Amino acid sequence: MSYTQQMLDAYPADINLDRKQLAAVIDALTACAQTCTACADACLSEPAEQLPMLTRCIRDDLDCADICTTTAAVLSRHTGYDANLTRAQVQAALQATKTCADSCGEHADRHEHCRICAQACRQAHQALDALLPALQPAAGTGSPTRAAPQQSARP
Amino acid sequence: MSYTQQMLDAYPADINLDRKQLAAVIDALTACAQTCTACADACLSEPAEQLPMLTRCIRDDLDCADICTTTAAVLSRHTGYDANLTRAQVQAALQATKTCADSCGEHADRHEHCRICAQACRQAHQALDALLPALQPAAGTGSPTRAAPQQSARP
Amino acid sequence: MSYTQQMLDAYPADINLDRKQLAAVIDALTACAQTCTACADACLSEPAEQLPMLTRCIRDDLDCADICTTTAAVLSRHTGYDANLTRAQVQAALQATKTCADSCGEHADRHEHCRICAQACRQAHQALDALLPALQPAAGTGSPTRAAPQQSARP
Amino acid sequence: MSYTQQMLDAYPADINLDRKQLAAVIDALTACAQTCTACADACLSEPAEQLPMLTRCIRDDLDCADICTTTAAVLSRHTGYDANLTRAQVQAALQATKTCADSCGEHADRHEHCRICAQACRQAHQALDALLPALQPAAGTGSPTRAAPQQSARP
Repeated sequence: MSYTQQMLDAYPADINLDRKQLAAVIDALTACAQTCTACADACLSEPAEQLPMLTRCIRDDLDCADICTTTAAVLSRHTGYDANLTRAQVQAALQATKTCADSCGEHADRHEHCRICAQACRQAHQALDALLPALQPAAGTGSPTRAAPQQSARP
Repeated sequence: MSYTQQMLDAYPADINLDRKQLAAVIDALTACAQTCTACADACLSEPAEQLPMLTRCIRDDLDCADICTTTAAVLSRHTGYDANLTRAQVQAALQATKTCADSCGEHADRHEHCRICAQACRQAHQALDALLPALQPAAGTGSPTRAAPQQSARP
Repeated sequence: MSYTQQMLDAYPADINLDRKQLAAVIDALTACAQTCTACADACLSEPAEQLPMLTRCIRDDLDCADICTTTAAVLSRHTGYDANLTRAQVQAALQATKTCADSCGEHADRHEHCRICAQACRQAHQALDALLPALQPAAGTGSPTRAAPQQSARP
Repeated sequence: MSYTQQMLDAYPADINLDRKQLAAVIDALTACAQTCTACADACLSEPAEQLPMLTRCIRDDLDCADICTTTAAVLSRHTGYDANLTRAQVQAALQATKTCADSCGEHADRHEHCRICAQACRQAHQALDALLPALQPAAGTGSPTRAAPQQSARP
């Protein structure tokens, strides 16, 4: 069992989401972030005549790596859970993994690292997409759903 | 003139956004990220009887720091600009700075670091909010607006 | 085979380090970073009377998460490899994983998340320690060992 | 007065370092990180014939951005201060800012963004260098200097 799953099982309070699904999303995001960092660097070591076609791909890799790392961190925190915040960051990650999968996908035939990276992005995208319905804030409140309200002052 | 502004002026291609406004947003985000990191740590050094009331605030600080750092990085990149991606990440940062400003704001009377942090969050929120209208993708396309398309293969 | 290993195999130039060992180190660092982020948050959800004993542990978790994420990124890049830089960052990660393993280890009996986190930190520490001898800069030069020198100007 | 300085002044416990000097180091690191992120992206938008000479510079920018961001975060935390950990991360940042200043410096005549970035790296390097003597662990102990020991269990 991965550390991610073990840590979710050891969390000492309630989690509003399915822990097994959550572990899968977090693991897909951290894998995607590492793959994007590696792909940006692999692009930089391609022959000179290939570089001009890879600049947008490198940029998309860098954005996707940063956004997936941050989204994995947000999804790893459950104290004072705020569905609105989690949902907004997950939507940014959905866009980043789509953009990067498309961008790397254009080079999949020519560059093996782009093929693998597009696959990691699509896998993270699908995992995020499956999680999204569970991130609905409570209807009709207009305010964040707080799963673990701040402990009150002790007398 | 800040390094942020100098670097935007030295960027060797077009930028679709107002460079002065963009510099102000990036600087507000990096200041907010540092302030949130410092506030989470300051909360941890408060007296024992205060800690239970600060746990949600610490969590919101950590999310806001990560999200603002990532958003500043995304806004610092202009190669292959994708309005959809930038917009989604800016919306996540709008939510994070609002959540954290509210959370720290609850403790502003009692903890000076929370008062300052709420102020930094609100300043970043306002800067992001003013930038949002400029991040509109081209109407009716459904696809990202690419400001700096990938250079084509050289013959 | 993990994405990490696949991406190292797809890297289009030389890598001065053993690719299998490198993949193991990177994977241990990303797992450790996620575990530390989760442990800091789990500490925040412990009962009020436990919090004062966990503040240093939370701080060490946050440092270790940041440092392991950055070290994994540095080790995922091979273009223009600089042994001095890699070695310095690996040494910081060795210290961070030791500090955090010790800090979480103090609470391993009482908090399952601290027990798991100490284990993830020790695993990352051992992987880094085994890599260290391979990060020796070329003797007697005083300057960085550059594995993939910048491509020269084309005529 | 910057938020960094304000937050240090609002920290509710002792800080072992000079707060004014510390604020200057943190601000130099966050400015350097942003500048390196922007320089990597500006390099990607240079004309095709320039790209092959900029690949190592881009890689050094990316490392330096990650390392400076992490070092700024470590220096922004004071709870349970560990001089050994802080010192190790500062030494990594000293190496990263030197490597990147040298790398960007090679292109300072040709690319304004590299000239500015080399300057931001050198400024961060000097600030870190001036801080280093203050990060000496207590002599002869072999164990971390803990400035703010964990609060003991309440009876």
